[in-house]
Amino acid sequence: MISKTKLIVRYQETDQMGIVHHSVYPIWFECGRTDFIKKAGMTYSQMEREGIKLPLRSLKCNYFYPSYYEDEIIVKTRIADLTPTRITFYYEIFRRGILKPIVTGETEHIWVNGNLRPVNMKKYKPELFDKIYAIFSEEGSA
Amino acid sequence: MISKTKLIVRYQETDQMGIVHHSVYPIWFECGRTDFIKKAGMTYSQMEREGIKLPLRSLKCNYFYPSYYEDEIIVKTRIADLTPTRITFYYEIFRRGILKPIVTGETEHIWVNGNLRPVNMKKYKPELFDKIYAIFSEEGSA
Amino acid sequence: MISKTKLIVRYQETDQMGIVHHSVYPIWFECGRTDFIKKAGMTYSQMEREGIKLPLRSLKCNYFYPSYYEDEIIVKTRIADLTPTRITFYYEIFRRGILKPIVTGETEHIWVNGNLRPVNMKKYKPELFDKIYAIFSEEGSA
Amino acid sequence: MISKTKLIVRYQETDQMGIVHHSVYPIWFECGRTDFIKKAGMTYSQMEREGIKLPLRSLKCNYFYPSYYEDEIIVKTRIADLTPTRITFYYEIFRRGILKPIVTGETEHIWVNGNLRPVNMKKYKPELFDKIYAIFSEEGSA
Repeated sequence: MISKTKLIVRYQETDQMGIVHHSVYPIWFECGRTDFIKKAGMTYSQMEREGIKLPLRSLKCNYFYPSYYEDEIIVKTRIADLTPTRITFYYEIFRRGILKPIVTGETEHIWVNGNLRPVNMKKYKPELFDKIYAIFSEEGSA
Repeated sequence: MISKTKLIVRYQETDQMGIVHHSVYPIWFECGRTDFIKKAGMTYSQMEREGIKLPLRSLKCNYFYPSYYEDEIIVKTRIADLTPTRITFYYEIFRRGILKPIVTGETEHIWVNGNLRPVNMKKYKPELFDKIYAIFSEEGSA
Repeated sequence: MISKTKLIVRYQETDQMGIVHHSVYPIWFECGRTDFIKKAGMTYSQMEREGIKLPLRSLKCNYFYPSYYEDEIIVKTRIADLTPTRITFYYEIFRRGILKPIVTGETEHIWVNGNLRPVNMKKYKPELFDKIYAIFSEEGSA
Repeated sequence: MISKTKLIVRYQETDQMGIVHHSVYPIWFECGRTDFIKKAGMTYSQMEREGIKLPLRSLKCNYFYPSYYEDEIIVKTRIADLTPTRITFYYEIFRRGILKPIVTGETEHIWVNGNLRPVNMKKYKPELFDKIYAIFSEEGSA
């Protein structure tokens, strides 16, 4: 599964170089992630209420082209890796008029419980883990 | 004319109170403003390229209800006042499940040129001013 | 009591107009507020842990001059009004080289408990209320 | 040369997990970078006015421990690599009470001119390049 999330660049997201500030792309990745989980039939809000959180372990971002105020942005999100203790999402950001992604990135997350303690999802929430694993495997076969 | 702009609350927009941080609403007002201008047949990007900018003179915000991560938000935007030197926008922010606006606000802007010098729009860009005035008057009659 | 809080303008805080984005000033007000409370001998972190929060009821901001990347900023903060159910802070923002405040503003807050329910501070936390009232009165006499 | 930059965590920088949002660390890296350049006897503002800009080519962030509202943060910044076309900064973020860095990261930048075109700094601004190279070499020997 790959989700596509549409955004419009906000004025506040630009900086004095006249382009979107680099710290905004991780926020767009998060929008993509939220949307991915929703399109997979869950919501991250609901997951949090059930005591599952996904703080980041690492973030990578590669910038190829800038984007500008009012640009129409597409965030493509997929699961790049999944283990009982970690999940990694991969993102490609596109803007109208450029065929290649303008920015790509990766966020690696730790599965933690409501108290932010690491958990083994296979034991902690086996049904949810299986559900997410199915989505991940399906991707792998694509 | 009243524009309606849809947004989804981002995780990054929440704070440790578990609600959207108050500094986010002025950014949503800006999204509404961008969309209003676009729906009125212009774009603010284009206006800037033609040497018209709209820095703020004042901002007001009234908070009635909180909003939460993943909430679906509607920003209703209209022109509250227009003179050759100033333009004021008025905003109402709604979220699903609450009939009244959760936040209302106003931004007063000064018409300036590319060098951020105040201008009299009636002289500087009479056609654009008339176009915006027509939109404003139509609202007044609504 | 008036607190003075020093900040350096961050690149990320600028926008494509080449100036600090207007949505940043409410964040600086918050920095001033945090510092005010600390200099008054409490911390807002500690207040939150004791079940006192201060969500906003309203925000006002007046913009007189822009500020720029790397500018040295001073936020002057004081209590403008205090009742058992509300507290209002007033802010003046200065930057080197301009004698008058470049931005002024006001934030009105509701005293709420840990569940975000409004409280009467005179009953809920009388000692803290008296302490803050003393700071406020002293200001009034200034 | 290694610069140390002190920051206080802002309320707005927290999210509903009760910790600083991961997208904030790249902004703190930028504060560290600004301060590093200043302590090296230049200012990035001045560099920009002279037609030198430093957009990002890539960003990496590793998160080991969270940070919290009002925490006192230290950003340690140094140059990790320098060529006539690229400069890479390395950051370590500390907070009181934890000896190891809570977050580390790297930003790789392209030297561009005022029109955002890549330049060879050895030819474009040889004196500035030599000055920065000297700072970088000195570090290498540390």
